[in-house]
Amino acid sequence: MTAATAHPRIGSVAPDAFASAARRIMGRCDDLASISAGEGRITRVYLSPEHARVNQVVAAWMREVGMTARTDAAGNLTGVLPAADPDAPVVMLGSHLDTVTDAGRYDGILGVLLGIEVVRLLRERAADGGWQSPFPFGLEVAAFSDEEGTRFGKALLGSSAVAGAWEDGWWDLTDADGITLREAYRAFGLDPERVGEAARTSERLVGYLEAHIEQGVELDRRGEPLAVVSSIASARRFQVVVEGEARHAGGTPYDMRRDALLGASEAALAVERICSSEHHIIGTVGRLEAFPGAVNVVPGEARFSIDLRGEFDGARDATWARISAELDAIMGRRRLRWAAREVHAAPALFCDPLLQDVVRAGIGATDPGAEPATLFSPAGHDGMTIGSIAPVGMLFLRNPDGISHHPDEAVGTADVAVGLRAFAEAVALLGEERLP
Amino acid sequence: MTAATAHPRIGSVAPDAFASAARRIMGRCDDLASISAGEGRITRVYLSPEHARVNQVVAAWMREVGMTARTDAAGNLTGVLPAADPDAPVVMLGSHLDTVTDAGRYDGILGVLLGIEVVRLLRERAADGGWQSPFPFGLEVAAFSDEEGTRFGKALLGSSAVAGAWEDGWWDLTDADGITLREAYRAFGLDPERVGEAARTSERLVGYLEAHIEQGVELDRRGEPLAVVSSIASARRFQVVVEGEARHAGGTPYDMRRDALLGASEAALAVERICSSEHHIIGTVGRLEAFPGAVNVVPGEARFSIDLRGEFDGARDATWARISAELDAIMGRRRLRWAAREVHAAPALFCDPLLQDVVRAGIGATDPGAEPATLFSPAGHDGMTIGSIAPVGMLFLRNPDGISHHPDEAVGTADVAVGLRAFAEAVALLGEERLP
Repeated sequence: MTAATAHPRIGSVAPDAFASAARRIMGRCDDLASISAGEGRITRVYLSPEHARVNQVVAAWMREVGMTARTDAAGNLTGVLPAADPDAPVVMLGSHLDTVTDAGRYDGILGVLLGIEVVRLLRERAADGGWQSPFPFGLEVAAFSDEEGTRFGKALLGSSAVAGAWEDGWWDLTDADGITLREAYRAFGLDPERVGEAARTSERLVGYLEAHIEQGVELDRRGEPLAVVSSIASARRFQVVVEGEARHAGGTPYDMRRDALLGASEAALAVERICSSEHHIIGTVGRLEAFPGAVNVVPGEARFSIDLRGEFDGARDATWARISAELDAIMGRRRLRWAAREVHAAPALFCDPLLQDVVRAGIGATDPGAEPATLFSPAGHDGMTIGSIAPVGMLFLRNPDGISHHPDEAVGTADVAVGLRAFAEAVALLGEERLP
Repeated sequence: MTAATAHPRIGSVAPDAFASAARRIMGRCDDLASISAGEGRITRVYLSPEHARVNQVVAAWMREVGMTARTDAAGNLTGVLPAADPDAPVVMLGSHLDTVTDAGRYDGILGVLLGIEVVRLLRERAADGGWQSPFPFGLEVAAFSDEEGTRFGKALLGSSAVAGAWEDGWWDLTDADGITLREAYRAFGLDPERVGEAARTSERLVGYLEAHIEQGVELDRRGEPLAVVSSIASARRFQVVVEGEARHAGGTPYDMRRDALLGASEAALAVERICSSEHHIIGTVGRLEAFPGAVNVVPGEARFSIDLRGEFDGARDATWARISAELDAIMGRRRLRWAAREVHAAPALFCDPLLQDVVRAGIGATDPGAEPATLFSPAGHDGMTIGSIAPVGMLFLRNPDGISHHPDEAVGTADVAVGLRAFAEAVALLGEERLP
């Protein structure tokens, strides 16, 4: 399939309808920004009062375009526009509504709102007046409840439940206040015993399509608004503890010091040096603390995180081996001990070739003649878990200056309009493919 | 004065009396260890309930040896054994009762308890039965209320009040809970308006003598129990802020990163590299934090402390200039901004030649023929402030493995016994000097 002309269903849409929908999406991103724990910044975490409130608001928007909406057993919100055949599978469009601490207003949210607008556009063109999907599959919009892992440190909890990949060990994860995931479920009105009911099966899913800001600078540097995603990064995360000896800063000569913070500082610089010398490998130390953390005490302990991402699992693991060897050398030289606990691991997720094609064709329809960019995503997405039960396709929208996970995160209204058109084209093209 | 034989007042003390007093001191250090905020570790900060409690307990011990005891306008506890002439000046023996967080049990406390035992020994030998000092000067034991600066970040608050060096700007210092020093004074039952009443004048002070664990390894390495102190370090402390840009860890290529934590890591290593290449200069980064501190966000800000000590003010300042130039280079290369705020500065304090001599003679009397060690103190002490109103002398006791500001901080009972004898000798010798 290399169709670079508009699908009839989308070609008949007045160009102004995309611009108008894009403005509505931008206004709604602003609206959701106010549903936050704390004034003046956006923080919306799993199973919080803000989570309940955002589900309520977005459910109303789903219903407004003709979908039924409900919150599932893991707190995910799903809207459905069924096919004429009630047994037909669905195409799932989605992303997440939770945020990091002090977040921007588009990461995740934009993908959910684009899904809703795609349903609005396609339904308005349906023969029956819009109460059913015009395709041989239903349309579903999934608004996942936890992608960022902000509250419990474990990412992708919402989509893991949907993928049937929930692990019993997670119930004892705690948040910063010591509340367990189990307790948080109950406080939110969910029953931990029933989390399995959120699981979906592959035979009911044609595919999963997600639109998302790039969270990188590639499109901005190329001057293009949209890209098709080839794969989602392979990732591992570690919590590293370095142990030395806390001693008086005045009375301990350098030859007696076993300064854990200096070991950790060398380690952070080694992560940068090693990863930047590799192709498509990114390593980040985002968190570092020294203990006891007193001005006049040589730090006896330091803790830091390592976030490691790569295009391929093998290269990622080889890089971790290099980092480990370097940490052995640094800590050995400084007479420190170190240990790393792996807190997250995800293999690379390769997007489905057919879904890459429909997304590419969707983008192509918006700019005939151009060759759409294909990007690898170093950032994680819900598709990483949904990939185990459905083929995954992703559309990236240009993210000015690549700033995300930050209040300055942005996306242009014109890019949202063209992204909506491409996304709707992709769904319509998929409908074409599935027609008998 | 080179007397290396025991003073008659001390020579007549049964050797077992020193051992017995040392055991009492060790037992009392254990007792005071239980007066702490929180179980299982020692933390006793300025104007806390623990501060009130420790003053009460130690005041009882002062009274037991015949002193009057009271808490002054800055929360310092002072015990006095007056001279026959009520207008005679005093020799002040002392140290502090506050601690760092998760402290050892000897830093400061030992000096106060040694002072009390010196009074006990000398009083028992007084002609009048012990209700007056046997010397032409009174004996005072000062238990300073804040030397470590743990609660308000500003060290030596207690002795600064005694030295008449209190600064109005300090009232607005806050603790970790946002409580101002002014509020803490009132909550403790002290009147901020009256802090000036704690100030003492130089004409009423013959001198200040402090015994303290070394907080270093020099005596342990030499295999000697005691040293006379030549000077207390010149010190400066800085709070450094590094500013870069917080960005998504996955989507930000290395050439776009302005990672504040990596700048701070290089800075911490530069402090070590520069200071360790200088003579008698010690620099320590004890505290370091990255913000926002999320696993998957490139740190946009980092904050760290620098503690800089040197034997001489000039060398210390030249080292700071080298560090500053290196930080300019590091941050410039990484496109980061940095700023340092100086939060503490103290010139070197040179111990009084006469008091160095009496301490040296006191040590010599315990081991005739040996040449007592003379050490520079990289650690700060109350003498740094009291030095502005009185000559200062200090005695160091061996500190096994140099561990201090840590629960493993130790001192040997035998060393405390010989230290007590030397300290008492020094006071008696000073009395001799002052006799008409």
